Amino acid sequence: MFYLVISPTLQLHSTSPIYLTTSSILNFYLPYIFQLQGENTAMDNVATERRAEESHRQDSANLLIFIMLLTLTILTIWLFKHRRFRFLHETGLAMIYGLLVGVILRFGVHVPRNMNNVTMNCSVNASPATLLVNVSGRFYEYTLKGEVSTVKGHDVQDDEMLRKVTFDPEVFFNILLPPIIFHAGYSLKRRHFFRNLGSILAYAFMGTVISSFVIGLVMYGCVTLMKAVGQLGGDFFFTDCLFFGAIVSATDPVTVLAIFNELKVDVDLYALMFGESVLNDAVAIVLSSSIGAYQPAGDNSHTFDATAMIKSFGVFLGVFSGSLALGVATGVMTALISFCFTKLRDFPLLETALFFLMSWSTFLLAEACEMTGVVAVLFCGMTQAHYTFNNLSPDSQDRTKQLFELLNFLAENFIFSYMGLTLFSFQSHVFNPLFIIGAFIAVFLGRAANIYPLSFLLNLGRKNKIGSNFQHVMMFAGLRGAMTFALSIRDTATYARQMMFSTTLLIVFFTVWVCGGGTTPMLSFMSIRVGVDSDQDSSQVTVSDGTQHRNTKHESAWPFRIWYNFDNTYLKPLLTHSGPPLTATLPACCGPLARCLTSTQAYENEGHQHNDDSDELVLNDGNATMYGDVTVSTDASGTLTTNHKHLSASTMGITSEEALDQELAFGEHELVIRGTRLVLPMDDPPEPTMTLPPPPTSPPPFSDPFSDPFSDPFSDPRRNRL
Amino acid sequence: MFYLVISPTLQLHSTSPIYLTTSSILNFYLPYIFQLQGENTAMDNVATERRAEESHRQDSANLLIFIMLLTLTILTIWLFKHRRFRFLHETGLAMIYGLLVGVILRFGVHVPRNMNNVTMNCSVNASPATLLVNVSGRFYEYTLKGEVSTVKGHDVQDDEMLRKVTFDPEVFFNILLPPIIFHAGYSLKRRHFFRNLGSILAYAFMGTVISSFVIGLVMYGCVTLMKAVGQLGGDFFFTDCLFFGAIVSATDPVTVLAIFNELKVDVDLYALMFGESVLNDAVAIVLSSSIGAYQPAGDNSHTFDATAMIKSFGVFLGVFSGSLALGVATGVMTALISFCFTKLRDFPLLETALFFLMSWSTFLLAEACEMTGVVAVLFCGMTQAHYTFNNLSPDSQDRTKQLFELLNFLAENFIFSYMGLTLFSFQSHVFNPLFIIGAFIAVFLGRAANIYPLSFLLNLGRKNKIGSNFQHVMMFAGLRGAMTFALSIRDTATYARQMMFSTTLLIVFFTVWVCGGGTTPMLSFMSIRVGVDSDQDSSQVTVSDGTQHRNTKHESAWPFRIWYNFDNTYLKPLLTHSGPPLTATLPACCGPLARCLTSTQAYENEGHQHNDDSDELVLNDGNATMYGDVTVSTDASGTLTTNHKHLSASTMGITSEEALDQELAFGEHELVIRGTRLVLPMDDPPEPTMTLPPPPTSPPPFSDPFSDPFSDPFSDPRRNRL
Repeated sequence: MFYLVISPTLQLHSTSPIYLTTSSILNFYLPYIFQLQGENTAMDNVATERRAEESHRQDSANLLIFIMLLTLTILTIWLFKHRRFRFLHETGLAMIYGLLVGVILRFGVHVPRNMNNVTMNCSVNASPATLLVNVSGRFYEYTLKGEVSTVKGHDVQDDEMLRKVTFDPEVFFNILLPPIIFHAGYSLKRRHFFRNLGSILAYAFMGTVISSFVIGLVMYGCVTLMKAVGQLGGDFFFTDCLFFGAIVSATDPVTVLAIFNELKVDVDLYALMFGESVLNDAVAIVLSSSIGAYQPAGDNSHTFDATAMIKSFGVFLGVFSGSLALGVATGVMTALISFCFTKLRDFPLLETALFFLMSWSTFLLAEACEMTGVVAVLFCGMTQAHYTFNNLSPDSQDRTKQLFELLNFLAENFIFSYMGLTLFSFQSHVFNPLFIIGAFIAVFLGRAANIYPLSFLLNLGRKNKIGSNFQHVMMFAGLRGAMTFALSIRDTATYARQMMFSTTLLIVFFTVWVCGGGTTPMLSFMSIRVGVDSDQDSSQVTVSDGTQHRNTKHESAWPFRIWYNFDNTYLKPLLTHSGPPLTATLPACCGPLARCLTSTQAYENEGHQHNDDSDELVLNDGNATMYGDVTVSTDASGTLTTNHKHLSASTMGITSEEALDQELAFGEHELVIRGTRLVLPMDDPPEPTMTLPPPPTSPPPFSDPFSDPFSDPFSDPRRNRL
Repeated sequence: MFYLVISPTLQLHSTSPIYLTTSSILNFYLPYIFQLQGENTAMDNVATERRAEESHRQDSANLLIFIMLLTLTILTIWLFKHRRFRFLHETGLAMIYGLLVGVILRFGVHVPRNMNNVTMNCSVNASPATLLVNVSGRFYEYTLKGEVSTVKGHDVQDDEMLRKVTFDPEVFFNILLPPIIFHAGYSLKRRHFFRNLGSILAYAFMGTVISSFVIGLVMYGCVTLMKAVGQLGGDFFFTDCLFFGAIVSATDPVTVLAIFNELKVDVDLYALMFGESVLNDAVAIVLSSSIGAYQPAGDNSHTFDATAMIKSFGVFLGVFSGSLALGVATGVMTALISFCFTKLRDFPLLETALFFLMSWSTFLLAEACEMTGVVAVLFCGMTQAHYTFNNLSPDSQDRTKQLFELLNFLAENFIFSYMGLTLFSFQSHVFNPLFIIGAFIAVFLGRAANIYPLSFLLNLGRKNKIGSNFQHVMMFAGLRGAMTFALSIRDTATYARQMMFSTTLLIVFFTVWVCGGGTTPMLSFMSIRVGVDSDQDSSQVTVSDGTQHRNTKHESAWPFRIWYNFDNTYLKPLLTHSGPPLTATLPACCGPLARCLTSTQAYENEGHQHNDDSDELVLNDGNATMYGDVTVSTDASGTLTTNHKHLSASTMGITSEEALDQELAFGEHELVIRGTRLVLPMDDPPEPTMTLPPPPTSPPPFSDPFSDPFSDPFSDPRRNRL
């Protein structure tokens, strides 16, 4: 509870008028005049309305600047795609345009003084969230916007325009990041991701934590040095250093992977980098908020306190696992809804709307529960891709993919062009050469401490070693992007945070332009395989080096295998119209429950399996034998099936291990077909795979190296086409 | 300029603490702490942050309520569609759910007092937009939220929860209405729309103005009566009455037309109602803002002033035509961009993003120029549908349609469920029985004064009379919806506006539930043709009653015919890859200009026309003869063409008038095919029309009566499938 003591004085600081206007976000800031009783106040209302209209007009104009920037970016991207320039990615381009507009706004535009915004000062002893001002008997409501510095008061009037193009940083977290992160989860290439799950988790979790602490320590050294030579203009605590470490440890999944896609880089390298960068965003966001929550007891809040440290760690674990559980839970709920309301498939618009709303509600629910919405949305996306996607109609599958693709594209380019703009439009940059040099060294060291030791340790366990050339590329191509920016702009209140923000901006620029642009030469210098077709790759491994392949999977996918079995036996039948009905997988004692939970469609499904093709039986065989003997061949009923998956499995005499791998690759596709087949009469010819293009015989220009449609129905069409 | 005189007193009104918190819109209200110099202020910051977090958490929870409401609505809609209930449309359903949640929030939930939001009062003589508060030497920025009444101060604490679910009304105008209106323009069924253009314009413009004035006059009578019997609790001027007339004159294009679609009502009736309701939204919004701008000179602002009246009329004309021009201009610009950047077609994502951004920038541009964004967006949508759509790749055509369909669906259902909620959550309802009865009578009379006299006048000119049963249905089915609600909630500051808002809410409920639900019985009672296929309909008319059909078009489409000719000869070739190249249509003197403006594709196009099929020549013949003799048969080269359009035209021996009509109907489709054909090698077989389904042989359930794919590539799939 806050009881306010207010000093009864009010001062008019007319000597230094400060011009501040509402910096609105999406145009909706007109004051909401609640009530007005009696009194003829028409003229006052008109004045207020006119002021509000003026503010609205300017907000529209500012937003228009960004829309025009994006339009320009799109047209230039097209030109680049058309001419096949690869040295600069669209994100780098968006930053350049942002920079140019920032320069123009900073040095070119001078907005005349606007006298409507004259402010007044009243000197009180507290800053409540809401203030009531009594103007000749009428009460006006004011809300707290934040603290302003009066030190720079004399030059603020020139910056009015710049202030106006500055968005509330929470926009990045609540509007722009969620679609980007959801899309990353929804389009995760699960086949290669799960094959390297262990390594990815190691890099993303341990690596990010290591990197954060290494960067934090190096920066603490740097800051101590700065203090010694008198270069530090304010406080900079050890927690600030750790916070800085956390925010610059998040690597960006956008820029480098677009290049990887275009060049068709080795699948495992791609999977490692994509998986790591998607997951370490989630780790970094939770880590930075845990460091923010590190509040030692007592007055001196910047000493080391073991209890607070453990508490912070608890917060980290709690928030991360909570957000994960929440994201998965809403994903599963969506799958259940689309599973139960089978006839929803006839109305793709309703399906798509439902999917969108449920995914959005994940974010809101997590935020309302004081979890991290962005993390929840990531795991929700992955769950939606794994379960709900199978229950959707082909039309909705396309629609949802395209919708999130568009949202992702717009949000991404908006963030990057805003980044460029902010270098000039942000009011309180603190560029400290020593700190900047220290930060670049720290970022380099942190990345090295993440990649090389972990790769060494992982290689001890992995049969399919992560080569030193892979390690160098992972080291080099760890770009910083949207997440780092959003985390650093979120709080720019203190000197330390301002210096961090300015430095982070430079790190992002450097990595996107230099490292991003240098990725292609780097790949050829490191003699990384490019132009690899993901299917060709996996079959090569199977045929030429079967043992190694099996062992690789055996070793790196073990946490996944247990899950896969559980998933395939219980979850998929429960949540999707695919897989065997529960009555077949649950033990006999659970019979009534299983019958109650199994849809009629699943029974039909089972009938199909027994009558038409026995693919599910083959899978069950595969699963049953998997634990006993990994080399037992599953040619039992494989020859009977018309499904090319099992035909190839049986004719090639591959093991159940590989059948599992193939199931991972082909499963989703098969389910889609089976789902649509059930709607058709029995005597119909098998429906052509409407949603999926035929396997590419000759790769189209700019095509995805993993765009083999059977391996992953989520192969990102944007990466294909761009 | 405003110079503020501030009285140096500050009062603490601790006797009546008023609990107000930020009612945030899309979650982004955390205070932006600009700068904080020196001083150890960690504890203060923590307090501020915690307060902001709490506010953010609650905002998320509130938004979650709406998302859940929408999810529930979707699931119930699905159930209704599945069981084919027709008595209640989804919008009515959304309102019912909103009502239920409103009741729960009002009577079920009691939020405990939140001491963090204690406010303080400082008594000054003005209400600037921004306030600086000096708290022990540190300055905090506050922004004006609006005026609050202290009369109800004692019961405000109970309403905290209700306040929180109240959105800023500008959200409706700036976020929710634009996609709805754009979608209406983009999905306008142009064939039947243009056939009845004259009548639609008459109903939409003259009708809405008549209706506004009739309602305004009746309400003025009612208000005078109320004043006489002492029922009026505040001021209610004649301009308020006119304003009320303007806002309740906008009919809703959603609910009734969904029913019409499902029942396949007569095409002309459908076109009249759809065209009227789309355009009168635009008229009503500009009209109401013009009435708001009516400010007579002198102190007494509520007397009649001819100058101000003329000025208001000038504002109406200026804003309407300005917004129209702006919308058309950006639409044309988008068409030009997609025309020039031909290779953009290879990247559907870029195309879709560009399309979306340009359409949004229309809105922002109009708002920045002090025009009406919603009106601009409507005409932008129509222009995009007419020109840009033809330049898009088939993939992008699908994507844009689906995107705006989804946005429209979500926005619409959100508005309607919010409407239900607001009946209980709005704080200052003024329900006056006399006013409500008067309003219902006025709305009835206003609608009657719109439909019947105008129909009589139009029938004088029309050969294809608007029958009395049509008139009765148009009278009965003039529902009020989203636009009326958005206009009335925009300003609820005065007693008059509050009473208007409450009454409008009841009118919307009544019309959507009673009139919407009664439409089906009404149609059968009035013996309106249902189950009409639009194609069948037009051919029937052509065969059985050729003269009447021709004359109808002759009389009602004349303003359109001039435009059509100009459009087909100059605009389409200039803006799309269809139509003859400019070199063929422009006079010889403009040769160089024409060559400069014609794309190589258009030349190829011309080559195709001469070599493959001579459809464009036939069209040119048709156009050339159209003015001279409307019955000359165009069998010149029609027999040579393989295009079924002209094949049918020539074999049936129809007139050039009908060829024009057919061109309207088939043109778009043909252009799509031609556009894709050009990409293919010359010797390829004609590409199947990927984006367009074959003509329906047996109509699917819930199909659109106008869904003949050749007549309109925009036949709304939502209306089809739902």
